[in-house]
Amino acid sequence: MRTPAADTVAIVLVGDELLSGHTADRNGSWLGRTLTDAGLRVIGITVSPDNPFAVVRVMQRALEDAAAVVVTGGLGPTSDDVTRPALAGLRAGPQRQLTNRVGTEPGVVLDTDGGMVYAVPGVPAEMRTMVTEQVLPRLLAAAGALPPRATRSLTVVGVRETEVAERLHPLLTTLSEKCTVSYLPRPAEVHVVFRLTGDEAETSAAAAVQAAGELLGDFVAAVDQRIEESLVTALRARGVTVATAESLTGGLLAAGLVSVPGASDVFRGGVVAYARDLKAELAGVPRAVLDRNGTVAAGTAAAMADGVRRRCHSVFGVATTGVAGPDPHDGHPPGTFHVAVSAAAGQRVISYRPTVTRDRDTVRRLAVVHALDLLRRTVHGLGRARGESEQPAAR
Amino acid sequence: MRTPAADTVAIVLVGDELLSGHTADRNGSWLGRTLTDAGLRVIGITVSPDNPFAVVRVMQRALEDAAAVVVTGGLGPTSDDVTRPALAGLRAGPQRQLTNRVGTEPGVVLDTDGGMVYAVPGVPAEMRTMVTEQVLPRLLAAAGALPPRATRSLTVVGVRETEVAERLHPLLTTLSEKCTVSYLPRPAEVHVVFRLTGDEAETSAAAAVQAAGELLGDFVAAVDQRIEESLVTALRARGVTVATAESLTGGLLAAGLVSVPGASDVFRGGVVAYARDLKAELAGVPRAVLDRNGTVAAGTAAAMADGVRRRCHSVFGVATTGVAGPDPHDGHPPGTFHVAVSAAAGQRVISYRPTVTRDRDTVRRLAVVHALDLLRRTVHGLGRARGESEQPAAR
Repeated sequence: MRTPAADTVAIVLVGDELLSGHTADRNGSWLGRTLTDAGLRVIGITVSPDNPFAVVRVMQRALEDAAAVVVTGGLGPTSDDVTRPALAGLRAGPQRQLTNRVGTEPGVVLDTDGGMVYAVPGVPAEMRTMVTEQVLPRLLAAAGALPPRATRSLTVVGVRETEVAERLHPLLTTLSEKCTVSYLPRPAEVHVVFRLTGDEAETSAAAAVQAAGELLGDFVAAVDQRIEESLVTALRARGVTVATAESLTGGLLAAGLVSVPGASDVFRGGVVAYARDLKAELAGVPRAVLDRNGTVAAGTAAAMADGVRRRCHSVFGVATTGVAGPDPHDGHPPGTFHVAVSAAAGQRVISYRPTVTRDRDTVRRLAVVHALDLLRRTVHGLGRARGESEQPAAR
Repeated sequence: MRTPAADTVAIVLVGDELLSGHTADRNGSWLGRTLTDAGLRVIGITVSPDNPFAVVRVMQRALEDAAAVVVTGGLGPTSDDVTRPALAGLRAGPQRQLTNRVGTEPGVVLDTDGGMVYAVPGVPAEMRTMVTEQVLPRLLAAAGALPPRATRSLTVVGVRETEVAERLHPLLTTLSEKCTVSYLPRPAEVHVVFRLTGDEAETSAAAAVQAAGELLGDFVAAVDQRIEESLVTALRARGVTVATAESLTGGLLAAGLVSVPGASDVFRGGVVAYARDLKAELAGVPRAVLDRNGTVAAGTAAAMADGVRRRCHSVFGVATTGVAGPDPHDGHPPGTFHVAVSAAAGQRVISYRPTVTRDRDTVRRLAVVHALDLLRRTVHGLGRARGESEQPAAR
């Protein structure tokens, strides 16, 4: 059997709760990103039941594929913690401990016949600290000299995956075989990821991003960043501020902005005007606008954005209103929404009418992304988004 | 080799972006929950790279463990979509199609030498519709009569995992071997999950939940629900309303409440008072309180909760203020926070001082959970939470 390359790592997550969907895993993606960013190759992630025999089997398979295995979970003090007994089932030298600086259960290092095994706790903060400080340095030392790698990404908003691929087609035929391109569709977004290996990785990746940016034009909302991060950077560079007025998205738009470190430089605050009367009292929508348009309307979104901009003394106001579902509201089907941006010069609105059924979370994320994108277009002085009204919103 | 039981299913997720952490997987947990809730046994989840040989290998292993495999991702129109070529690498009968009602790429059913393979798209909405309408009925038909199963869970707030386990120890020794107990620690919460199989499953699970509830007392914040869901139910039953004033959590507290269908019956709205001056102007905190306490203080949290309750005409007000980090603020270390609840009778405050370093997301989630828990204690007329002030908050 072929020996796995020294820079390959497999991740094993232990826990019935991950198989039954009681817990959405976050450790796997954090480990994947951390190890990949350090230059290692993550060749698999496997979730095992809380059963020592299953854990042994999964670890043995992982050691067939990779030079090292990182196991998280099942190390705790309670009866469902099975990783220690499973480690005893591997043919291996003596166990050594990894110290736990932010919790109680130590980790384990095991030099097995098939490769190295690192067992770390499942509690994210403990896992992250132990991996960063103790596991990653050992993995890198064992991997030896790594070839230069570069990963760059574009966040494209308002264009479907197939259109993104069509637009990038001329570029793809010119890329070297060492460049892989992935398309990751999200609600209202497509992430395009370029990955390169070799001495020219950085230069070639930069050229690919540049060329892709030209083919995609102003649909590119962020480079190597989330749209929220890119927006906070752009607002800070201009010394301008923003405030939010949310109905449909109920705080998610604000939460997305404050998730960016340093957001307090540009984000003033906002209101969640969920009940109809609070759209007037908190967000400053004139009652005549509410009476004329109802709560789910382009004019109401524009008035919310304008009202919150004035009340929060910000340069821009951003607003969302719509129907998350599952039931219609005031005759509007679930998935209908309007997002607006207000500036001193006037308001801009994107109106969205659903073509397929979407769940509440997806409808809200669509509205958040379109609202952020409309703000980006306003901040950068760009032309109309798809779905944007031709006329400024009527008041 | 042992033939896998007819009710076993393995899940395979295809995508480099899941291995490199560019995308946090949500399909695996949705599939795990949906199949488990239907009575099937999910015995593994594996993430494979975008490489047809790796996908074949992962599917072959999955078919050793399970009677059926559900593969998601890699079916799209772009160059990184490798599942179709991988399916061609399995020894199998003719392919049949699954229709895609909400997208473009059809799914595939394949009757292989080792078991059934169902390939569905990676776009969550398309995957969910196809699995619910076409894959799950086929899996259940193939599994035959399933033994009765019951899963019940308790959400415990404000007690560490080890203490939860200690308190439940007397119960665990009395449970039958057919009952498994899992402890899932989250920021400020521990989820205790009981799983039972057999004719007495429902009755035994109900008895276990009842006994556990008595041992854990008023630390149980929800049964079979998230704390947000339980709280919306309790507020609705009493015909009372709530409003939120957020600094630290920047909209997450409101977003958690509106994530519950029907939240509009009880959630009025709120403010995100991120900038200092907006704590006065939007949240109605008297300037004297801000001047005396600063922004990160028990008295300020209490005044925010009180102010937003009045401005939103709600029965309860809930507020958060604190330091997410990574830097200290006004001399308070990252992780410090205060959450408050206001009612006509007065205010209650929990103050939290960090003992270990936590990331911004974790600090925010801690504050959201403690704020919801303090509201729960107030709504149900329960005694003090750990960390709650002995005296009503000073104004």
